Amino acid sequence: MTARRVSRIGIVGAGQLGRMLALAGYPLGLRCCFLDRSADSPGAQVAPSLIGELEDGALLEELAARSDVLTFDWENISGAALAPLARLTTIRPPAAALTVSQDRLHEKALFKRLRIPVAAHAAVDTRGQLLRAVQRLGLPGVLKTRRMGYDGKGQFTLADRAAIDAAWSALGGQALIYEKFQAFSRELSMVGARSPGGETVFYPLSDNRHRDGILRHSLAPYADARLERSARRHLKRVLEALDYVGVLAIEFFVVGRRLVANEMAPRVHNSGHWTIEGCVTSQFENHLRAICGLPLGSTRALGHAAMINFIGEMPDRARLLGVEGLAYHDYGKQPRAGRKLGHCTIVRKRAADRNRAFSDTLEMMGRTD
Amino acid sequence: MTARRVSRIGIVGAGQLGRMLALAGYPLGLRCCFLDRSADSPGAQVAPSLIGELEDGALLEELAARSDVLTFDWENISGAALAPLARLTTIRPPAAALTVSQDRLHEKALFKRLRIPVAAHAAVDTRGQLLRAVQRLGLPGVLKTRRMGYDGKGQFTLADRAAIDAAWSALGGQALIYEKFQAFSRELSMVGARSPGGETVFYPLSDNRHRDGILRHSLAPYADARLERSARRHLKRVLEALDYVGVLAIEFFVVGRRLVANEMAPRVHNSGHWTIEGCVTSQFENHLRAICGLPLGSTRALGHAAMINFIGEMPDRARLLGVEGLAYHDYGKQPRAGRKLGHCTIVRKRAADRNRAFSDTLEMMGRTD
Repeated sequence: MTARRVSRIGIVGAGQLGRMLALAGYPLGLRCCFLDRSADSPGAQVAPSLIGELEDGALLEELAARSDVLTFDWENISGAALAPLARLTTIRPPAAALTVSQDRLHEKALFKRLRIPVAAHAAVDTRGQLLRAVQRLGLPGVLKTRRMGYDGKGQFTLADRAAIDAAWSALGGQALIYEKFQAFSRELSMVGARSPGGETVFYPLSDNRHRDGILRHSLAPYADARLERSARRHLKRVLEALDYVGVLAIEFFVVGRRLVANEMAPRVHNSGHWTIEGCVTSQFENHLRAICGLPLGSTRALGHAAMINFIGEMPDRARLLGVEGLAYHDYGKQPRAGRKLGHCTIVRKRAADRNRAFSDTLEMMGRTD
Repeated sequence: MTARRVSRIGIVGAGQLGRMLALAGYPLGLRCCFLDRSADSPGAQVAPSLIGELEDGALLEELAARSDVLTFDWENISGAALAPLARLTTIRPPAAALTVSQDRLHEKALFKRLRIPVAAHAAVDTRGQLLRAVQRLGLPGVLKTRRMGYDGKGQFTLADRAAIDAAWSALGGQALIYEKFQAFSRELSMVGARSPGGETVFYPLSDNRHRDGILRHSLAPYADARLERSARRHLKRVLEALDYVGVLAIEFFVVGRRLVANEMAPRVHNSGHWTIEGCVTSQFENHLRAICGLPLGSTRALGHAAMINFIGEMPDRARLLGVEGLAYHDYGKQPRAGRKLGHCTIVRKRAADRNRAFSDTLEMMGRTD
C-alpha cells in the first residue's frame, strides 16, 4: 500500500474526532468518507457520509470498497463486523487493537503482560463475585462495565459495603470489572503514533482534569522527565505488542511517584486536542500520516497549552475570540447536558502566562473546573 | 447583523482560497456554501456548492438567501450582478471595493487619491494612445489589460519600440493600461483586515518572488521597520477609504528605498498563505472573523516562514513530509501547466534555519526558483 498514493480514507463513526481527522486530511490531499447514524453528525458536516448503523455489514463493505485505508472515530466496532472488510481494504489500527481495548479486562491483561502497572482488579459476572472481589481487594473501589463505557458512563463508585446493592442493581447482569480505587494525585495521558514501518513518535505528557467522568481540561506539556520516560516506555510497549499503526493514547493515574495505567484508546484522544495549535504536527495529522504510510510529523510542543472542553453548552463565541491567541473549535453538535460540544486552546510561551490566560478564560466562561 | 450569531457564509468562487476559508470556518462554527462552475472544485470538495456560472443571477440569489454573509474567492464579479443581492444578505467586502479592484486604472486612481505612490501610467484604448503613452512615459514598459488579469495573464512587456506591434496585436481591442516599467529590487506585500467597527490588524510584510507573473514563493516576515510602517499606512488608508470589511492585500514594488503600489486584492492572498502556520491567526480565519463581526485575531508571527507554491505539478508528498515541520497543502486540483496546485510552508525560530530548510526543500523539489 505504501507504493501507491493513498488518498481515500474511510472513517467508522463521524463524531468530533472524525471531523477533526477529515479537516486535517484535506491539506494532505486525503478525502475522508464516514459511516454514521446521523446525516448531520460533526463529521458529515465536513465530508461525505454513508448513513446507517455503524455495524451494518453492507454499509461497512461499501465504505471499505471506497477507501484505501479504513480507520475509526468509534473504536467499539466488533471483530465480527470488521473481519469481512480485511479483503476489501487496509484496516488501521489493526482489528486486534480495537478488540483488546473494547474490554477493560482484556486491556488490563495486556498491560500486565507488558509489565505496565494497573490497579488491582477482578472480573465480576455475578453478585457473589462482586462480594468476593470487594472482600479480597477492599474498599473503596469502582465497579465498571467491561465494555462500551465512555465519559464516566457505566461506572459506579463503591465507598463502603452499603453501596454494593446499589452498584449491583445499577450495573449487574452484564460483564463487569471491580477495580480497587486509586488514590491518585493526578491524571496524565500520553498520545503517540506508530507507522507501518515501526517508526514511533510521542507527544509530551498531558495533565488532565475530569469531573463526573468527563474530561474538563488539559494542561500540557506536563513537565516531569521521569514520568514522561515511564509513560513513553509503556506506550511504546503497547504499540509494538499490537503491531499498531496510527495514534494511540493511554490514560494514567499518578499514584505516589508511579504511573498506573487506567485505560487506552486506539485512536486520537480528547487529551491530545491541544496538539492542533500546541505542537508542530497535530495528533490528527499524525494519525493520518501513520495510517497512510507517510513519514510521521514532529511532536515538538510550540509552547505551553491549555485545552478547555465545552460541555453541555457553547460559550459566548465573540467573547472568547477576544482572548489573545485563543483557538476555538465548534463541533457542530446540538447542545445536551454532559455532551462535548467543542473546545478551545490557548498557547503561551511561558507556563505562568498560560496559567493566567487559562484562569481568566475559565472565569469568562463562568466555570470553576 | 452583529447581534445575531452568524453561521452561514456564502462564497462566490470555490478555488483554493475559498477552500481554505471553508476549512478555517468549520472550527469557528461557520458553514460555507460555494457557487462555482465545477462540481469538483477545490472548495466543493470540502463544503456544499451550487454549480453554475459565477454571475448567474438566480444562483447568486439562492446563495445570498442561504447566507448570513456573502464573500468572495473570485473578486471579478460585476457590480450589476452584485446589486440585487444587497437586499438578501450582507456583502463583505463591500461591492465598491470589488469594483475598484477590477480595473487597474481605477485602482491606480484610488492609490493616487490616497497619496500612495504608483508607477507612471496611461489609459490605452487605441493604437494611437499606445504610441503616445510610450512616447510620453518611455520604455521599457508593460501593457496590461485593465480587467481580469491574474498570474501574469493579460500582460505584455515592451522592451523597445519594435515590440509595440506585437503588444498591440496580443492585447489590442480591449481597455488597456500602459505602465512605465519599475526597476524594483524586491516585491513585497502586506495583508491586513478590518472589522465592521473599524478595528484593523496587519500581518508582517511578505517578500515575494514571481516568475512568468506567477508567485513562486514568499519569505516572511520581511524585516524592514521603515517599509513596514509605510506599507501599513498605505493599506490602512485603502481599508478606511473603502469602509472595507475583511482581508485586503496590496502588492508593492520596492523602488530605491520607496514602496510603489502595484495592485491590490480585495480578498485573502497567496502571499498570505504562510500565515496558516506562521502566525497566531491565519488570514483565512481573520477574513471570516472580520466579515462575521467577530473580534480580529492576533497577527503575530510565530517564527520565520517560507511558503513555496506547487505550480503545474505536485511534488513527492511522502518526501516533502519528511522535512521537519513542513506543512503541506494540496488544493485537490487537476495538474495543468502554470496552475497553482498547492503549497507548503516551513516555519523556523531563526531566519538562518528557515533559509537553510527553504533551499533544501527547493532542491528536493528540483527547483531553482
